[in-house]
Amino acid sequence: MPAADLLTVGNLGESGLLARILPRLQGASALLGPGDDAALIAAPGGKFVITVDTLVENQDFRLRWPSGFQSSGFDVGWKSAAQNLSDINAMGAIATSAVISLTLPHTTPISWVEDLADGFSAAVRELGATFCAICGGDLGRGSEVSITAAVTGTLATDHPVLRSGARPGDVVAVSGALGVAAAGLALLDSSISHLGWTADEQVLVFGQRRPAPPLAAGPGAARAGATAMMDLSDGLLKDGRRMAISSGVVIDFDSRTMEADAQRLSPAAARLRKDPLEWVLGGGEDHGLLATFPSADDLPEGFRAVGMVKEPVGGKPRSGILLDGKMPQTDKGFDHFEG
Amino acid sequence: MPAADLLTVGNLGESGLLARILPRLQGASALLGPGDDAALIAAPGGKFVITVDTLVENQDFRLRWPSGFQSSGFDVGWKSAAQNLSDINAMGAIATSAVISLTLPHTTPISWVEDLADGFSAAVRELGATFCAICGGDLGRGSEVSITAAVTGTLATDHPVLRSGARPGDVVAVSGALGVAAAGLALLDSSISHLGWTADEQVLVFGQRRPAPPLAAGPGAARAGATAMMDLSDGLLKDGRRMAISSGVVIDFDSRTMEADAQRLSPAAARLRKDPLEWVLGGGEDHGLLATFPSADDLPEGFRAVGMVKEPVGGKPRSGILLDGKMPQTDKGFDHFEG
Repeated sequence: MPAADLLTVGNLGESGLLARILPRLQGASALLGPGDDAALIAAPGGKFVITVDTLVENQDFRLRWPSGFQSSGFDVGWKSAAQNLSDINAMGAIATSAVISLTLPHTTPISWVEDLADGFSAAVRELGATFCAICGGDLGRGSEVSITAAVTGTLATDHPVLRSGARPGDVVAVSGALGVAAAGLALLDSSISHLGWTADEQVLVFGQRRPAPPLAAGPGAARAGATAMMDLSDGLLKDGRRMAISSGVVIDFDSRTMEADAQRLSPAAARLRKDPLEWVLGGGEDHGLLATFPSADDLPEGFRAVGMVKEPVGGKPRSGILLDGKMPQTDKGFDHFEG
Repeated sequence: MPAADLLTVGNLGESGLLARILPRLQGASALLGPGDDAALIAAPGGKFVITVDTLVENQDFRLRWPSGFQSSGFDVGWKSAAQNLSDINAMGAIATSAVISLTLPHTTPISWVEDLADGFSAAVRELGATFCAICGGDLGRGSEVSITAAVTGTLATDHPVLRSGARPGDVVAVSGALGVAAAGLALLDSSISHLGWTADEQVLVFGQRRPAPPLAAGPGAARAGATAMMDLSDGLLKDGRRMAISSGVVIDFDSRTMEADAQRLSPAAARLRKDPLEWVLGGGEDHGLLATFPSADDLPEGFRAVGMVKEPVGGKPRSGILLDGKMPQTDKGFDHFEG
């Protein structure tokens, strides 16, 4: 068997690999943890929410980027946890459990997989998902790295906050960063060497590598009476359009409220010859929250107003989004299968 | 856009693909179904079990086998549902929800994906998981087809039946087929054309394509006082060894109780020059149950005795398996990363 730092998934069996990973998956305690056919989780109130998300190598992350930067297992594990915790957050819920299914090529270094487990656990802990048990899951082989997590949660209030509850007159608000992950992605994907990134640019890339969903804000919004809420995963305009259509309303975004967001991204945008407002409006993977509230006075901690909900308009489409009262020139966001 | 039967995943967007799949995912009703960031599921008793499993193209199934047989999307969807429902069954629980994450190459025909959704739904319905809501999930692109399902369940009794509860003196019993899926796999993998399979051989292949976990047997065993239980996914000896080690006992299998299982596989084994008992003892993916009961009189419907639990022995290993009182010459089962 090769030296410890050269060990790959193919050198250890399934049980050997599990023995390396399981001790690193540390969260809250489940009623029954890894080691049986299924885990047993408490569901206070007799109901729970559940979501599932997958990250695939070369689609959702790269082991090596055009900029020369290499994604660590830690980054990938963190991102998997963060994107699932964000979905739970967006229901106004608190995460209670995570199960993970990992598909690995034979040649994946064991150290990379251990790092992934550490990153998943660190995200759960550092993002504040202190009630989330990490209950193991499934291991299998494939030609590319793929990590799927299913996360469950318990509602902070009697009912979940849905996408469909926005009403005319509501204030539209967001929590968390806008466009940072997109700017970071553009830097990772550019031909400018990562060795030449400025400190500010490194912060943008960090936002892409380690998204930080505001996990107190989702339950906080639910308690504050949010009428609608969703995760910002595919971009403000695209996700906003989904909420508008689901609610049967028009959401009018006010670009003046996003000037500081765009300003923050300006130096990187100038270097890459991009429009920073495009990142703010169209960039995915920030994993903040988009929510609506009955009035601007109701905005809970961590939210800032970015627009208003209006009555649906005549003609087609009756519901949808506006930017500063006009049809936006772009509503591009992320679509896994777009040409 | 090409003709309907030539449409691929790349021709439709993510939302177009979802619109094709979601109507086909039909199970029981969730409190809140697909369409939001997470689904809302009832958890009677204030707790639930959860499991996750992945099937990857060319690892867990082939679109085209050496025998020339082609796996349908329906088969793959069925198998994904069956293997997860089996884990819930093995806890003595009844499935309540399933979420699915699907990774698809750009070139996958839409009809294949629709077929997969139909197969998943058909398994849930036909295997009797009538309380299982299918709540959608996640769609993404990859270079190979991969399907991950997470399934939750509610316990049939106060406590789950674990792997670790087998006690000396207990009767060891199984429910469901032994070796059928392995025989089917050997036929699929052989160079004998699928066009030349006998009717009996087609039945064996069907057992591999459409495993049928006995979903009444798990809750039935829990109610009948099973002391330990687990899913037979990696082979009787390998899974038996896991149970024995987990329980700190010796499990002694009686090969005479499996003569009928081996007999059934004999013609196919003769044709492929295999030992049918190897399939019975080492074959995975049957997704029956292995359970222990305080006495042979307690065996609930669908179970048959295959051995006895004995005291751990001196020396190493203290706990483990025997076959007819002796160390088995084979305990090969499935390991995803074995050389």
